[in-house]
Amino acid sequence: MRTMTTPPGRAPAPARRDAEATKAAILKAARHFLARHAHADITLKDVAERAGVSPPLILKYFGNKDALFARVMSFDTDADDLLDAPLDDLGRHMVRHVLSSQRERGADPLLRIAFAPLHGDHGDVLRANFRAQVTERLAARLTGPDAGLRAELAVAALVGLGVMYGIARGPHLRGTGTDAVVDRYGPAVQAQLTPGREATG
Amino acid sequence: MRTMTTPPGRAPAPARRDAEATKAAILKAARHFLARHAHADITLKDVAERAGVSPPLILKYFGNKDALFARVMSFDTDADDLLDAPLDDLGRHMVRHVLSSQRERGADPLLRIAFAPLHGDHGDVLRANFRAQVTERLAARLTGPDAGLRAELAVAALVGLGVMYGIARGPHLRGTGTDAVVDRYGPAVQAQLTPGREATG
Repeated sequence: MRTMTTPPGRAPAPARRDAEATKAAILKAARHFLARHAHADITLKDVAERAGVSPPLILKYFGNKDALFARVMSFDTDADDLLDAPLDDLGRHMVRHVLSSQRERGADPLLRIAFAPLHGDHGDVLRANFRAQVTERLAARLTGPDAGLRAELAVAALVGLGVMYGIARGPHLRGTGTDAVVDRYGPAVQAQLTPGREATG
Repeated sequence: MRTMTTPPGRAPAPARRDAEATKAAILKAARHFLARHAHADITLKDVAERAGVSPPLILKYFGNKDALFARVMSFDTDADDLLDAPLDDLGRHMVRHVLSSQRERGADPLLRIAFAPLHGDHGDVLRANFRAQVTERLAARLTGPDAGLRAELAVAALVGLGVMYGIARGPHLRGTGTDAVVDRYGPAVQAQLTPGREATG
């Protein structure tokens, strides 16, 4: 829990962490609260405590609370990895990426959007980022009719997979190997990206 | 907002509401808070105020706060409608049901599961209900291998559709007619229910 890059079984003292691991721990803690409390109710002290760092260290790395949450509410970096595959294999790649993010990092590239209702006006920031950085960016790669709709439906399927895995904790999904889930769910996502070519999967 | 059965443009005085409309307004208000605040932070007074009724009226209809939230955390009634179609048409029916619930009632049969992290131990009640009343109930109707997994993946796709419509507010999805969305997304859901027979959609 305390850092994202520590091998299992090792718990280095804070002093031994490098800056990247510390930043990652802070972001992970902030994401935790983003899913559970309104923006206004989250304090830097809460985040610092959960991350195992001091509040001044958060200020050093991120400037202030708003800057930290602007970072946490961005999908940019996650979308780089999510979308990093040729279009013909993108459905399977995205399903695999959602599952491996959940399994290996206890995170999800997309799931933060589900918590927009908690955050009032800040929820609109999440929505606008999600649209610009994920769905419209995907739509720009698609050809054929209804590209915008098809991008939203493909992303909808991925968000739902994250909800089923990380929130509903579906026992069958969690008990099935990644490859088998990719085989079953990847073609359904791909059908939105390249309709009429589903059979290639 | 004040009742779920009033035609647009009419706002009857509370005294003219029948009991069913009042109960529906109370449940809708309780669902609103379930998506935004921890169970412990929600008061009957909040729910009453939003529903436009008095707290004693809530007690009259539901007994107490725990009983009200037990009702709000149940998927039983919604699942009756969601699953009410022959298996060969169930994918399209479920997509249509999610969209029409969002469009006509500002509600969703499944989306409450996304808010489980807010509710601590009560989140586990939501998860257990979701499993027993939705995914396992659907799985019991499926034949062939991996029925439990396929049911979870079909429901995942539907939950994601609800997130995209009701939370992310995807503009393409919201701007497209229900039939057109059913045509594009229904077959992807159906492919989980009756794999190998997708082409019938």
